[in-house]
Amino acid sequence: MNTSYEIAIIGGGVIGSSIAYHLAKQGQKVILLEKGSLAQGASSAAAGMLGAQSEEQESEAFFHLARKSRELFPLLATELKEYSGIDIGLVSKGTLKVALTVEQVKAYQKLISFHLRAGEQADWISENEARTMEPHLSDQILGGVYIEKDGHVQAPKLSLAFAKSAAVLGAVIREFAEVRSVLTQNGSIIGIETNEGRIDCERVVVATGTGRSDLLAQLGLSLPIFPVKGECFSVTTHAPLLQRTVFAEGCYLVPKAGGRLVVGATMVERSFERSVSVAGITSLLMEARRLVPAIANATWESAWAGLRPQTPDGLPYLGEAAGCKGLYVACGHFRNGILLSPITGEVMADLIAGKPPRVPIDAFRLDRTLAAANLQEKAVK
Amino acid sequence: MNTSYEIAIIGGGVIGSSIAYHLAKQGQKVILLEKGSLAQGASSAAAGMLGAQSEEQESEAFFHLARKSRELFPLLATELKEYSGIDIGLVSKGTLKVALTVEQVKAYQKLISFHLRAGEQADWISENEARTMEPHLSDQILGGVYIEKDGHVQAPKLSLAFAKSAAVLGAVIREFAEVRSVLTQNGSIIGIETNEGRIDCERVVVATGTGRSDLLAQLGLSLPIFPVKGECFSVTTHAPLLQRTVFAEGCYLVPKAGGRLVVGATMVERSFERSVSVAGITSLLMEARRLVPAIANATWESAWAGLRPQTPDGLPYLGEAAGCKGLYVACGHFRNGILLSPITGEVMADLIAGKPPRVPIDAFRLDRTLAAANLQEKAVK
Amino acid sequence: MNTSYEIAIIGGGVIGSSIAYHLAKQGQKVILLEKGSLAQGASSAAAGMLGAQSEEQESEAFFHLARKSRELFPLLATELKEYSGIDIGLVSKGTLKVALTVEQVKAYQKLISFHLRAGEQADWISENEARTMEPHLSDQILGGVYIEKDGHVQAPKLSLAFAKSAAVLGAVIREFAEVRSVLTQNGSIIGIETNEGRIDCERVVVATGTGRSDLLAQLGLSLPIFPVKGECFSVTTHAPLLQRTVFAEGCYLVPKAGGRLVVGATMVERSFERSVSVAGITSLLMEARRLVPAIANATWESAWAGLRPQTPDGLPYLGEAAGCKGLYVACGHFRNGILLSPITGEVMADLIAGKPPRVPIDAFRLDRTLAAANLQEKAVK
Amino acid sequence: MNTSYEIAIIGGGVIGSSIAYHLAKQGQKVILLEKGSLAQGASSAAAGMLGAQSEEQESEAFFHLARKSRELFPLLATELKEYSGIDIGLVSKGTLKVALTVEQVKAYQKLISFHLRAGEQADWISENEARTMEPHLSDQILGGVYIEKDGHVQAPKLSLAFAKSAAVLGAVIREFAEVRSVLTQNGSIIGIETNEGRIDCERVVVATGTGRSDLLAQLGLSLPIFPVKGECFSVTTHAPLLQRTVFAEGCYLVPKAGGRLVVGATMVERSFERSVSVAGITSLLMEARRLVPAIANATWESAWAGLRPQTPDGLPYLGEAAGCKGLYVACGHFRNGILLSPITGEVMADLIAGKPPRVPIDAFRLDRTLAAANLQEKAVK
Repeated sequence: MNTSYEIAIIGGGVIGSSIAYHLAKQGQKVILLEKGSLAQGASSAAAGMLGAQSEEQESEAFFHLARKSRELFPLLATELKEYSGIDIGLVSKGTLKVALTVEQVKAYQKLISFHLRAGEQADWISENEARTMEPHLSDQILGGVYIEKDGHVQAPKLSLAFAKSAAVLGAVIREFAEVRSVLTQNGSIIGIETNEGRIDCERVVVATGTGRSDLLAQLGLSLPIFPVKGECFSVTTHAPLLQRTVFAEGCYLVPKAGGRLVVGATMVERSFERSVSVAGITSLLMEARRLVPAIANATWESAWAGLRPQTPDGLPYLGEAAGCKGLYVACGHFRNGILLSPITGEVMADLIAGKPPRVPIDAFRLDRTLAAANLQEKAVK
Repeated sequence: MNTSYEIAIIGGGVIGSSIAYHLAKQGQKVILLEKGSLAQGASSAAAGMLGAQSEEQESEAFFHLARKSRELFPLLATELKEYSGIDIGLVSKGTLKVALTVEQVKAYQKLISFHLRAGEQADWISENEARTMEPHLSDQILGGVYIEKDGHVQAPKLSLAFAKSAAVLGAVIREFAEVRSVLTQNGSIIGIETNEGRIDCERVVVATGTGRSDLLAQLGLSLPIFPVKGECFSVTTHAPLLQRTVFAEGCYLVPKAGGRLVVGATMVERSFERSVSVAGITSLLMEARRLVPAIANATWESAWAGLRPQTPDGLPYLGEAAGCKGLYVACGHFRNGILLSPITGEVMADLIAGKPPRVPIDAFRLDRTLAAANLQEKAVK
Repeated sequence: MNTSYEIAIIGGGVIGSSIAYHLAKQGQKVILLEKGSLAQGASSAAAGMLGAQSEEQESEAFFHLARKSRELFPLLATELKEYSGIDIGLVSKGTLKVALTVEQVKAYQKLISFHLRAGEQADWISENEARTMEPHLSDQILGGVYIEKDGHVQAPKLSLAFAKSAAVLGAVIREFAEVRSVLTQNGSIIGIETNEGRIDCERVVVATGTGRSDLLAQLGLSLPIFPVKGECFSVTTHAPLLQRTVFAEGCYLVPKAGGRLVVGATMVERSFERSVSVAGITSLLMEARRLVPAIANATWESAWAGLRPQTPDGLPYLGEAAGCKGLYVACGHFRNGILLSPITGEVMADLIAGKPPRVPIDAFRLDRTLAAANLQEKAVK
Repeated sequence: MNTSYEIAIIGGGVIGSSIAYHLAKQGQKVILLEKGSLAQGASSAAAGMLGAQSEEQESEAFFHLARKSRELFPLLATELKEYSGIDIGLVSKGTLKVALTVEQVKAYQKLISFHLRAGEQADWISENEARTMEPHLSDQILGGVYIEKDGHVQAPKLSLAFAKSAAVLGAVIREFAEVRSVLTQNGSIIGIETNEGRIDCERVVVATGTGRSDLLAQLGLSLPIFPVKGECFSVTTHAPLLQRTVFAEGCYLVPKAGGRLVVGATMVERSFERSVSVAGITSLLMEARRLVPAIANATWESAWAGLRPQTPDGLPYLGEAAGCKGLYVACGHFRNGILLSPITGEVMADLIAGKPPRVPIDAFRLDRTLAAANLQEKAVK
């Protein structure tokens, strides 16, 4: 078995797989190491929304990153289909963020102003217009914001398509591979130790979602990440109930191929376990029935859960580690891993190639100051 | 392939499999024909309650049959384990029928009187006693009836255990076998026509649950059966939430091995489709949380549905057809197929052997008068 | 529930669903009735090859039909994706029919001549060329025929995409719906009797694959169909082992999205049961390893089986029944259901609209003479 | 959440669960931590043979331990059923170790002598006797050894039954719980750090199968364990093909409830990945068909793989760590985890209670000398 690579990527979720794909496209010799099976964590549990505009973003840098990433999907869908044969299920019919209270109406109008100032489309839709667009919406809807560009993809397929395309381009994928330590010499990466032996490499990318603070701690890095469990369920009908994603406080409904509807998602902070609770399912069912009453007759399919990797300031960690030459981190994408995976792959490939990243990522650097208050607050929850 | 048998049984659910088992035990040469896979219909969807006393029975014959069948389970569990290796999961910890309203309290006290008159045990349990017995019960419970003898089994395992034990005893089992017609000569059965050819036999037992009115119509028999869909779900906890079956109006919770809890069941009349609806799941979840609030933290497992074969008077059809020598029917067990399967197997084996049935079954004969009103009422629902 | 339609289609496999789709596109009021769940029979078990040219066809009419149908796939893939969101996984990289013996070399050169005479492409590929095209092919390969136009699709997705697109266009789909009889008056269809009641309609299309000879017999039609069981398995690798379908005597390997490889298929005549046998799996594994030795290291995924509906002369039944106005049949597509589904949908829609079919289908008419010898031969197998 | 326990057990497989059960029975306050879901590793993949005598044992201590453990099963089966409701599927019909070559005949007669000297039953069975006992055995069998006491259980159910019984007895089970470090003070255990926070405890038991050398290394312990992948498959028939386990070089067939037959197992050294390979399945199929030709017609069910934790001398590590008070290890049970789980639970509970173990375990102590040659040999494989 070959044991020498230019770059070892730790984590076979959507972020690690995207980085592997973008590096393999550049012709680099990459190995992607996944401790279980590909795309089995948060990457598979996600509903796949590309919600760059569905919430007002405090961070301008994040908002820019999100919009840039969203732009990449149409071409990416074609490329990944070409390489891997996998259709990522990109749907570009927009998102309808619906208001059920007067307070939400006001908040959403602020969201529209925010987007208009940013040069983005976001239209107020009256109650009647909303029900013309989506006849199955409840008559409790007071109106909403229509965001044309926020589509969605099949999250598990996106992750696999990245990984399998990387393999077609020459990347080596090893599943059930546990990385035990990162090896350095004179402050530079020289390899990694895995359960199946040593791998020599000059660069390591840690792309593990919530995990592996132990590995980073070995290298003197402390990058706090907290899991937030999300529970979802899906139903089917023959003719689809919705055309567009319907998004409300506490619940969203994403229409997938073949009349499938994915309903998500709860937020259970500080949970590492991935079971679906009766309480979670019940609250989602109640919310979904309030928004789209006709879902009562839809056919139940299944329920699942995943862990979103949250950081104290809500922003991912993207960049090279200051004290360790050749060590890169791309973690903590919280609820935005699917949306941000294309641009994350691109900018990490830029960094590794020694080029300036095509999008500013200074706000996401590993050594940024995280407000102590946030750390505290997250820690006690 | 051998094509001559003494008896052909149509239907590989719990009733057909029990009959096959009891006939094979008597040394008869039996073939069991199932159009799909064994135990895939109502027999697998059932929660497996042996609820002989959980409701007041209008029909004395039925009540007698139910109690006789319940008595057979302990020995049967041993026998089936011996033959097939399958443990049917018999649990004999009783059922607690709980009251949430004053009306129910009154009704359940009537039920107790009914059972005492019939010489059966049934004790009133105060609110405090109920929660001592089952600490996770809601404090909305006003008390209940404790029925010690109403246990439960694993329904899918019971069905398979009957069929596989029959096979061990020499019965031939053919799955994916469709019976196209029953062949008669001079008013006597001489065989059946199947998708894989003709089978010669002198007796045919129709044990198909809801189906095959077409087959019976060919022979001049009209035995109305209406499907009633039931939806269920299951959850798990490490330490069990309940020791006993908890039974209420609209919902029951049956504690299975390993901390699994089966919650059932809706009643959707005249439905032939077996999908699980969002409405059904929601109503069961609400009821279950009302009865056992701690279920909120249990882990969701899955949901399923099955069709119960209901007759106009709620009683099964058991017996030989008047106009066709050698044609037997054992259908329409509604919600009682699991409970009644042992005694049904025994009495049908008696009939086929030309012996008087060990339990009176006159009330279930095929040519009994079904009240026109009932037929009408069922038809319009 | 609405109970009046223009056309009732019996059978929710790929043929019935395609007919429903094409009729719904014409604006007709259609109900599609499936006795189980959509696309659960042969339509889902198929490997999805569009092998119009992979064998020499005795019937010119069939060969013409097959090529016409193959032509329809690219546009169809786009349309079905548009309506249903489902990607049917069309791959157009051709088929390599490989020879392992000198006899096969000769036979395949005859096949090439046949295709050249018919104006179709088919190129002889030397051993070296074959291994250049497909480096993982065994060195036992003596060469082969490359057929550029014979691609493949994801069979289960094609069936669902037809049905769900039909639903989007207004067709009603009813699963778990059993048709008990077809109702006629003065020799014309007036409706059907189902498990959920009567449906009025002027036309009925029987599209049930192997089944429902009973229904046709009621109407005086005898259209012999014999099931031929086919067993398959699938494996995965990260980088795909093959680019093109590899087809040999007794085994084919079809490369699907994401490095999945479907290997098929056995031929078990007169089997109605759909289990996968140890013998079947073993023979496929041996053949696959002989053709593509590197498959030894691929990861096992699963095995399954389906029943192909074969007719005495190998041709499907397509047309209107002579003695019963409004009764149409589209059955018996044997191993060609996926390939022929688009054109079958089109010509049946033509017939029902009273238009001449766009492709000659006289060879497939229901009252054609089936050689007695063939009937006999099939019957004794 | 409570965060103080007497004992924390790391690893929710059959060994950790048995220890949790035995400690909970003694009334101790235990937490069982599993990084994924209960019983998902080797414990679930095992065929469940209780093969104390199926091979000649070099180590007398091991042979004694194995026989003592085997003796415990009948009572244990009853107890675990009582506590958890789970039937562990104990079958006590013996094992037939069959010879296909003259060399094997000789070797097996040596095995019989070994057992007779040890005071154990083991009978030579002639070819005819073998086929009388098991009529489906191949006529290539030259005879064999019948070992009456070597039965089998359902491995996944045994693991779950231990864990769920422990929960009933008050043990806390936490799934998806990753232990990051073991905390010590003055050379004594004071707690563990997990992904969900710190747990205080005075004793820690490491029962992780192949894993967590990192954790032990933190504490100065080096206990080499090498994974050996085993692949299996299962088939079913209605009437069982075998009554007893049939064991040969390279293949065994274990008859489970309901006509299920588990066939195992390959030996892939130094593999951490758990995929099932085409090569592995093929070799098992060929062997199984050679031993029991009638398996050709059995119905394929599924295939799976697991990792056995092997040590350099083939013996498990059982005991307290010399340099760290309160740290216990029970790992490296190789192919014997199911068989040894009862006695391992008992002796570890003895040790933790400060009592002498009821069976000598000195041969398994953590600081025994492992032959350098063995370490070397294992390392290069």
